Amino acid sequence: MNAPAHPDHLLPQLNLRDVPPELITALKARFAERCSTALVVCEQHGRDESSFAAPPPSAVVFAESTADVAEAVKLAAQYQVPVIPFGVGTSLEGHLLAVQGGISIDVSRMNRVLSVNAEDLTVTVQAGVTRKQLNEEVKSTGLFFPIDPGADATLGGMSATRASGTNAVRYGTMRENVLALEVVTASGEVIRTGTRAKKSSAGYDLTRLMVGSEGTLGVITEVTVKLYPLPEAISAAICSFPSIEAAVRTTIQIIQLGVPIARVELIDSNTVRMVNAYAKLGLREEPMLLMEFHGSPSSVKEQAETVQEIAADLGGNAFEWASTPEERTRLWTARHNAYFAAIQSKPGCRAISTDTCVPISRLADCLLDSVSEADASGIPYFLVGHVGDGNFHFGYLIDPDKPEERATAEALNHTLVARALSLEGTCTGEHGVGLHKMDFLVTEAGTGAVDMMRTIKRALDPLNIMNPGKIFTL
Amino acid sequence: MNAPAHPDHLLPQLNLRDVPPELITALKARFAERCSTALVVCEQHGRDESSFAAPPPSAVVFAESTADVAEAVKLAAQYQVPVIPFGVGTSLEGHLLAVQGGISIDVSRMNRVLSVNAEDLTVTVQAGVTRKQLNEEVKSTGLFFPIDPGADATLGGMSATRASGTNAVRYGTMRENVLALEVVTASGEVIRTGTRAKKSSAGYDLTRLMVGSEGTLGVITEVTVKLYPLPEAISAAICSFPSIEAAVRTTIQIIQLGVPIARVELIDSNTVRMVNAYAKLGLREEPMLLMEFHGSPSSVKEQAETVQEIAADLGGNAFEWASTPEERTRLWTARHNAYFAAIQSKPGCRAISTDTCVPISRLADCLLDSVSEADASGIPYFLVGHVGDGNFHFGYLIDPDKPEERATAEALNHTLVARALSLEGTCTGEHGVGLHKMDFLVTEAGTGAVDMMRTIKRALDPLNIMNPGKIFTL
Repeated sequence: MNAPAHPDHLLPQLNLRDVPPELITALKARFAERCSTALVVCEQHGRDESSFAAPPPSAVVFAESTADVAEAVKLAAQYQVPVIPFGVGTSLEGHLLAVQGGISIDVSRMNRVLSVNAEDLTVTVQAGVTRKQLNEEVKSTGLFFPIDPGADATLGGMSATRASGTNAVRYGTMRENVLALEVVTASGEVIRTGTRAKKSSAGYDLTRLMVGSEGTLGVITEVTVKLYPLPEAISAAICSFPSIEAAVRTTIQIIQLGVPIARVELIDSNTVRMVNAYAKLGLREEPMLLMEFHGSPSSVKEQAETVQEIAADLGGNAFEWASTPEERTRLWTARHNAYFAAIQSKPGCRAISTDTCVPISRLADCLLDSVSEADASGIPYFLVGHVGDGNFHFGYLIDPDKPEERATAEALNHTLVARALSLEGTCTGEHGVGLHKMDFLVTEAGTGAVDMMRTIKRALDPLNIMNPGKIFTL
Repeated sequence: MNAPAHPDHLLPQLNLRDVPPELITALKARFAERCSTALVVCEQHGRDESSFAAPPPSAVVFAESTADVAEAVKLAAQYQVPVIPFGVGTSLEGHLLAVQGGISIDVSRMNRVLSVNAEDLTVTVQAGVTRKQLNEEVKSTGLFFPIDPGADATLGGMSATRASGTNAVRYGTMRENVLALEVVTASGEVIRTGTRAKKSSAGYDLTRLMVGSEGTLGVITEVTVKLYPLPEAISAAICSFPSIEAAVRTTIQIIQLGVPIARVELIDSNTVRMVNAYAKLGLREEPMLLMEFHGSPSSVKEQAETVQEIAADLGGNAFEWASTPEERTRLWTARHNAYFAAIQSKPGCRAISTDTCVPISRLADCLLDSVSEADASGIPYFLVGHVGDGNFHFGYLIDPDKPEERATAEALNHTLVARALSLEGTCTGEHGVGLHKMDFLVTEAGTGAVDMMRTIKRALDPLNIMNPGKIFTL
């Protein structure tokens, strides 16, 4: 295996179950060459963008339809073998790791846009459609799908982790944008969780129970999401600040004034430095806000004027504006390259990513002390943030072969999460719990709430075969 | 009992359980005069705004704290007796009826606003706070809570039914606006379902599982919701149309163009006539749209111009504008009085309310045939709608002593729901399932999805004491 080594204490969920050869035989009989047990295929499906490693799944089924998924799940249920849904593998929290063994169900071939309802601003897609593909396919309608977690993730995966990203400050997260799902349950039954109506009070909100359930309650096979009219005008801007604090205080004022900003991203000076080295951008190596405004021309102008005034008052300078798509792309290069630039800055490293999110009024309190601690630790890091939502990510760059670096990074994260929780925030704004935040979840939600989650899990998946060992252990 | 008689077949849920005198003794010992068994008190807590009736609960506990609720639930659990949460009794679907006997827990004395976080645009209240009270208490902050279901309902009740109303087209429903809840579970344990962070991926979305669960999974005791800055400018307008179709097509175009309209309400000519008779308004007795625009002065002007152009093109006329609060209130009188005007138009009547919601492109298809059917039935009705969301309500005015009128109204509703479902809509946009829409729910969601709801219910409430007999039967 190429995946990095890891200290065992990070994977208490490791509890391999037997995958009987009869199941593999049955899967091969049903799926032929679409069921692979090749080590390279299994290994590729047994890791994600997290820094964890576990033995790979025993087989990968490449599903091409909901019926395929249902049959694979039924066979797995028959042998009580875990099932791990796989989209394109961009999870950051170990969601895809076969910590209890089992089979991976790859839905990436389920990549058809099933119906665009431009008049209703909705679209229904198979779970393997990625967000960039979706936007390409609906472009001619004048509509777009705003949720942008950075990676070109699948809509199924984004639903499963309740993803969000840069545009969430204006358009919300997957929680607000998924209207309905088709789900294969733990018994292999196919259900639909909603309609295309914009709102409904028809029974329990199974859609939102599934959104964020990380594959532990079922396999998402279809997703109906909202679309939005492409804004009449879009304007982007970058602005440098003398300190992170000034950038953060600018953000807080923007949000508190109710400016309907579409994106407001923080990039710290470390990260600007890495991005300059990686992409020769020649940006001022100071903390920076990247912003985007959507609306009518007059509304965009109003928003931009308000923001420029706030920023200038707090020492913001070197405002640079862009309104054509090409210019905007250039400004956003720094943000889009941050992760890869950081990884390249320390060859062989892995990033341990944090994901706290706090009420906007607490953002400075949460962020500034954590920056001091990270600086003092000696661990290199990058810092980016969807600060308009109070959400930010440190990426601590560790050598996976040096347990002491991992320990330092985990200790920094621990302190950060404790601080965020004390400020009425959450341990994960958008990445999910996965393998990494189970203890934090208990601290955040309380044992009573986590026990309620467990009770739901046990009731809906009595054999504990749906992505077991994630979110909580049973 | 003053509640109207009813044909038994409408309440298949009626299945009275024994309430042992030991429970009443224990409740009186614990709550003294805050536990009432007076018939008049029990009867008042055993009905709502629906047209159904059932025997009243055996006792009413007036809770003043979360601990009170928890203790009452624990006692009820000990004797396996149903618990029905009660706010101010404005449910339209029989949610409050003791169809399986039991006790009512009245939370209306839990009416404190606990913390206003103006900087974060959030507020936490006890479940008995009503929406008007909340808006009064936060007025000085320059913020407001937009969800307006018409009645001055409690935040707990609005959460439990996933309520919405006139402002939802712009601000969303309780689904989008509740950040976190405190809930007393079926075992009397107290849990919190979220934090004040704007977004989170921390485990199952218990908040949204509880929102819309109609008291069947727990008693909501605290609610944290979003607030919004009072718009800089507000402008309201009414406009008459030659036909319902013209009004509906105007609405569809407004929404499809992405105008961020805050309210767009349809009132049919029947209802205008009733309101004129009730409140001497002298309005043109034609179908009418009531609209409201929120934003900066220039944005409000832009929105208004766009809408006026669309409406004029479809025959809209007699536009009347209002921008001061007094003028706006006058324009909205027709909408706010619609229900009472209708009830008064036929003395002794009850209204059987429909609540379908369809994708906006299907609105005309759904509405126009249903109007023809209602006209042909001979049953008087009013018709109002949150048409911007594709949601509308017929109120069929029946004499509760004439089973044939009820049967006709139910048949009209049945046809309407079937039509809405065939158009990818829902049987209930905002009122909930309650006693009235169980069969519709199965048709809409499918037996698999409803069985999943039942499984969750059984797991979280194994004694089936939390508002049993609502949403589905077990």
